[in-house]
Amino acid sequence: MPAPLVEGRPRGYIIPIGGAEDKVGDMQILKRFVRTCGHKPSIAIIPTASRREDTGRNYRELFQSLHASEALVLNFAEREDCEKKDYLDFLSRCDGVFITGGNQLRLSTTLGGTPVAKLLRRRNAAGMPIAGTSAGAAILPEHMIASGEEGPTPLARMVQLAPGLGISNKIMIDQHFRQRDRLGRLLSAIALNPFALGIGIDEDTAAFIGPDNALEVVGSGSVTIIDPSFLKHSTVAETDPGKPISLTGLRVHVLVEGGRYNIETRIATVP
Amino acid sequence: MPAPLVEGRPRGYIIPIGGAEDKVGDMQILKRFVRTCGHKPSIAIIPTASRREDTGRNYRELFQSLHASEALVLNFAEREDCEKKDYLDFLSRCDGVFITGGNQLRLSTTLGGTPVAKLLRRRNAAGMPIAGTSAGAAILPEHMIASGEEGPTPLARMVQLAPGLGISNKIMIDQHFRQRDRLGRLLSAIALNPFALGIGIDEDTAAFIGPDNALEVVGSGSVTIIDPSFLKHSTVAETDPGKPISLTGLRVHVLVEGGRYNIETRIATVP
Repeated sequence: MPAPLVEGRPRGYIIPIGGAEDKVGDMQILKRFVRTCGHKPSIAIIPTASRREDTGRNYRELFQSLHASEALVLNFAEREDCEKKDYLDFLSRCDGVFITGGNQLRLSTTLGGTPVAKLLRRRNAAGMPIAGTSAGAAILPEHMIASGEEGPTPLARMVQLAPGLGISNKIMIDQHFRQRDRLGRLLSAIALNPFALGIGIDEDTAAFIGPDNALEVVGSGSVTIIDPSFLKHSTVAETDPGKPISLTGLRVHVLVEGGRYNIETRIATVP
Repeated sequence: MPAPLVEGRPRGYIIPIGGAEDKVGDMQILKRFVRTCGHKPSIAIIPTASRREDTGRNYRELFQSLHASEALVLNFAEREDCEKKDYLDFLSRCDGVFITGGNQLRLSTTLGGTPVAKLLRRRNAAGMPIAGTSAGAAILPEHMIASGEEGPTPLARMVQLAPGLGISNKIMIDQHFRQRDRLGRLLSAIALNPFALGIGIDEDTAAFIGPDNALEVVGSGSVTIIDPSFLKHSTVAETDPGKPISLTGLRVHVLVEGGRYNIETRIATVP
């Protein structure tokens, strides 16, 4: 669960990215992330989700090219790495954290319950931005979509949840949203307990969630918001595995670049 | 997630029961629950998980026979029932809440995100005991075991999680533990993110978790505690569905009547 806020200090930005963000053109999302961290910021890169040896290094070079003063890859490969003093020291003083893509269960199994997970929650509560792309976006909430099936219709047991990092408890995130046809699995995740907002993020698209819980869409795709506040009924409890679920009374918003959504008031606005 | 504590007031007891608690003999668990609520307490019964029409009424009669001054069945059948003023009023003033067995997804889909869920978290944070049996125990934590397969060996994807009520974020609960051979599914739930303690509760057995996070075992069976604090490695991220998972460095305690476990210090003691 999120760490308590620090009195007098706003929470830091939470920035889920839908994967495959532009890295060769104007790099709008990455540029905006670096700017959100401050002037010439120090950035920590967590490449744990990825199995590719060069993932962290590539982001380090990108952030350096975008005028980060420092970009350090924290290679948490095993749980015991999460006790390393130099890594924890850097996480205590950096200006922003970026979590790469890969497999979100590698993040939850490696970081979960360690000092790194606690420190990330504390620093975000005290004002530090945290961004994650693809698996790095999925891990941000308390309830993480770990895996699931493709398709637009919600089916019973089509989605597998696991505990995430708990940076936010107000949202559930799915990524590569349109590209991998994930509306059904996000709906079926929300159907299990309609307390959280569902946020489906396309590739090369990000939701910049500010300290005031106002979300702004940045990038070339769209963000789909599923608000179950007025849900009348969900049949997931009575439905056999693989069969479609009824859900009535959902509110849905599809927002593109510049669109905004307030997670507290649940009001969407377009530019 | 749990509501913030109220300054100067201890959190209320959290009392998961493994199902099939004795209702005809000395009713040790139910008697102890009533006593924990106070002298001649008012008790709210939430029968939402059950499809049987007499479930709530039966518990009302049991609690009356155990000297509750008042026992009211709050029949939250649909989500809109969770706005009923007389039900919310009673939940605001009762001395304890008991959640019956049935299907835990009926609880999460009906109560999740409603004023009832918020009120239960707030009242427990301010001192009111909440007990639940079987499905009513599963729903208590932030991360709820919704369903899964039987067997002692943890397998990838053998367990389905869903968001629970969020009364506690420190534990995951499984019930009918020995009777339905659920060690494997509790281990595989913990493996997904080793931040929470796993608590497996046998039938006719309860874990009375006090305001100080000290747990005491009451009843005829045992409580199995799985502590992943020293977990070295979990292979769940790399394992195909249905295949066994490696988990190294778990600590396990099996406690019977009178055994205690401190969730903060992670120390077990036997009488």
